[in-house]
Amino acid sequence: MSERKGACIIGQSGGPTAVINASAQGAIQAALKAGCITRVLGAAHGIKGVLDDKLYDMDQEDASELGLLKNTPSSALGSCRYKLADPDQDDTDYRRILEIFKKYDVRYFFYNGGNDSMDTCNKISKYMQKIGYECRIMGIPKTIDNDLNGTDHCPGFASAAKYISTSCMEVWQDAHVYDTGMITIIEIMGRHAGWLAGASALATWAGFGPDLIYLPEVDFDMEQFLADVTAIYHRTGKCMVAVSEGIHYADGTFVSEAKASATDGFGHAQLGGLAATLAEIVKQKTRAKVRGIELSLLQRCGAHLASETDIEEAYRAGQAAVEAAVSGMTDKMVAFRCTRDDKGYFCETILEPLDVAANAEKKVPRAWINAAGNGVEQPFIDYVLPLIQGEPELPREHSLPRFAKLKKVLATAN
Amino acid sequence: MSERKGACIIGQSGGPTAVINASAQGAIQAALKAGCITRVLGAAHGIKGVLDDKLYDMDQEDASELGLLKNTPSSALGSCRYKLADPDQDDTDYRRILEIFKKYDVRYFFYNGGNDSMDTCNKISKYMQKIGYECRIMGIPKTIDNDLNGTDHCPGFASAAKYISTSCMEVWQDAHVYDTGMITIIEIMGRHAGWLAGASALATWAGFGPDLIYLPEVDFDMEQFLADVTAIYHRTGKCMVAVSEGIHYADGTFVSEAKASATDGFGHAQLGGLAATLAEIVKQKTRAKVRGIELSLLQRCGAHLASETDIEEAYRAGQAAVEAAVSGMTDKMVAFRCTRDDKGYFCETILEPLDVAANAEKKVPRAWINAAGNGVEQPFIDYVLPLIQGEPELPREHSLPRFAKLKKVLATAN
Repeated sequence: MSERKGACIIGQSGGPTAVINASAQGAIQAALKAGCITRVLGAAHGIKGVLDDKLYDMDQEDASELGLLKNTPSSALGSCRYKLADPDQDDTDYRRILEIFKKYDVRYFFYNGGNDSMDTCNKISKYMQKIGYECRIMGIPKTIDNDLNGTDHCPGFASAAKYISTSCMEVWQDAHVYDTGMITIIEIMGRHAGWLAGASALATWAGFGPDLIYLPEVDFDMEQFLADVTAIYHRTGKCMVAVSEGIHYADGTFVSEAKASATDGFGHAQLGGLAATLAEIVKQKTRAKVRGIELSLLQRCGAHLASETDIEEAYRAGQAAVEAAVSGMTDKMVAFRCTRDDKGYFCETILEPLDVAANAEKKVPRAWINAAGNGVEQPFIDYVLPLIQGEPELPREHSLPRFAKLKKVLATAN
Repeated sequence: MSERKGACIIGQSGGPTAVINASAQGAIQAALKAGCITRVLGAAHGIKGVLDDKLYDMDQEDASELGLLKNTPSSALGSCRYKLADPDQDDTDYRRILEIFKKYDVRYFFYNGGNDSMDTCNKISKYMQKIGYECRIMGIPKTIDNDLNGTDHCPGFASAAKYISTSCMEVWQDAHVYDTGMITIIEIMGRHAGWLAGASALATWAGFGPDLIYLPEVDFDMEQFLADVTAIYHRTGKCMVAVSEGIHYADGTFVSEAKASATDGFGHAQLGGLAATLAEIVKQKTRAKVRGIELSLLQRCGAHLASETDIEEAYRAGQAAVEAAVSGMTDKMVAFRCTRDDKGYFCETILEPLDVAANAEKKVPRAWINAAGNGVEQPFIDYVLPLIQGEPELPREHSLPRFAKLKKVLATAN
């Protein structure tokens, strides 16, 4: 145990989730408790807040408001999508970060985000090591896309999965109410990995869900898709389809960006996104009533449908990052190692080198997708089901969410 | 008290809601208990089930599954959008309905729906009176649009309002996460009345919601809309807008259907609906990042966000219809009379003549909309807030909804 006194910075980065603030809460509360951490600073809009010297003094926040972070979706400190340059090419940002770290005597840096954010975190860590500035740097995983390498799953994924599967079950009920034909196409986030689209299979598993699911792990074939949909529609009068926004043709072109194709002959303005485009194509093919539904931002900020398991794990990830750093660790990302067997689901936090997460995207294994490429298999269900368990006790006022309201007092150097 | 022995038919009609099955449950359970009701039949797909002689024997359903109806969205018996002819022009359907009523000795008919369904119910009631067939006919109100005349509000509206306001609060969090500009346009149901779009103001009232709200009660002016949005965007870097799908220009043309207009000069394919169209127009005007979000079917089937007040009132409406019919009433619609004052909110069921509901649409009073026509005033909040109160205890399995699974055994005549 090597004690190092100093301030810490906690930053949130990338797209928000329903539980990223639970990780912030875990990290902030652990840091406020840690004797060696002299000051807890929150970065306004991630690394941009460091570069702009916009840091919030978390010690000045009310404990009760910090307590509400657990059920407040999105990034309470603000987020960013800011790519740091290769320090060998341009070290301007790194020198500025160092300057701020020195100004506030920052010796702990916690960065919560997905692939790009772990890349940022990794670069800062390596830079500080190289120039010999002692700072313990830890990544905290986060992404609804669930595509971070080195961890069983990512905080944020499960709550989005629960939102998606519950919403699919409800829409299924709605889409089956008339005795007339109806095709429903639901567009789900996930540009490069199909974890979220696949999670819609939980709805089917529970009795009311998509008949067909298309993931970006399998090349999309418009002819086959239309044949799949038409076959089910003609047999049952209904068809519900879940598609990942990231589905693409064999040549890599996203279906959402393809204006027309030689095979389908349709050319459509992309005004309404993928669901609307596919709905129009299916409508022209089948002459059925077709409705495209894009779950849009709703799926990643739906705190009211969060998984309690996800919230608790997100909290623990933030807490574990601080505890590991306090105990002397650096240059790591907190990750989950999980077992799922007869005894149930068990999840422990471990540490992985930051490089592991920063440099790869984890896809849905091909073996978990059915042979036809239009659904997922039981191992996928077994993987995701334990993650969505549990309902949080949501703070409410007048039956509306009571989200955290932070003071966000700007810090000045001591 | 005039006792009349006989069977009853319960039918669901029009667009589903999160709580229409609670009304069905209230009616079914009251009918099963009523000594004079010899048999409880559920019409498959509303009046179409009567015409097609497709009636389910509700006595054969498990009580536990019927108990789950309360939290099962959409119309469990199936719904329809079927318009009965004027009986003076064509009485074919009426004669068929009479035939089925006689076949099963139906002496009670309960029809649950919105304006069109109350029209159906009213026509059947008047026909049966005219030809002298004794049958007690009651309408049970239902519509997320909340535009039924003769009642303080409609079952289904409050749960949709709660879904909309909660979702707006969550999306607001998401849309404010970056320090870059962002405009969000949320499309909300309501073709002719702005009750649902107006309900998004609850989110603003609670701290995080739309800056601007456009209802169909006020003619839409594209120039003014763009000026409103631009002003807020330039001042704050963000703007959140809620629009009713039914907004229309002064000449009555729906904005969602207007391909181009002389004033804005934009011509857009309507692939993605109103939100996508407005998003594109605003993007071209402001060069900002703009996201259009259509709440689509989600807002009317979101049972997981239902209002417990709404569920209970929906149940009571169904129950009250049966109890009133049993006590001798006919040709009425159950309605709510409510008081909102210092002592709180109180709602009682009353009976209104079926004609009242069948022949008018209730709009949001102009005085409840602000002078600029881009928001609602406090009386609107005071009206809707009591309706969304309370969270139901949701039946779940594996943290997913456990919806009712009815056997739907087809009835045969005794």
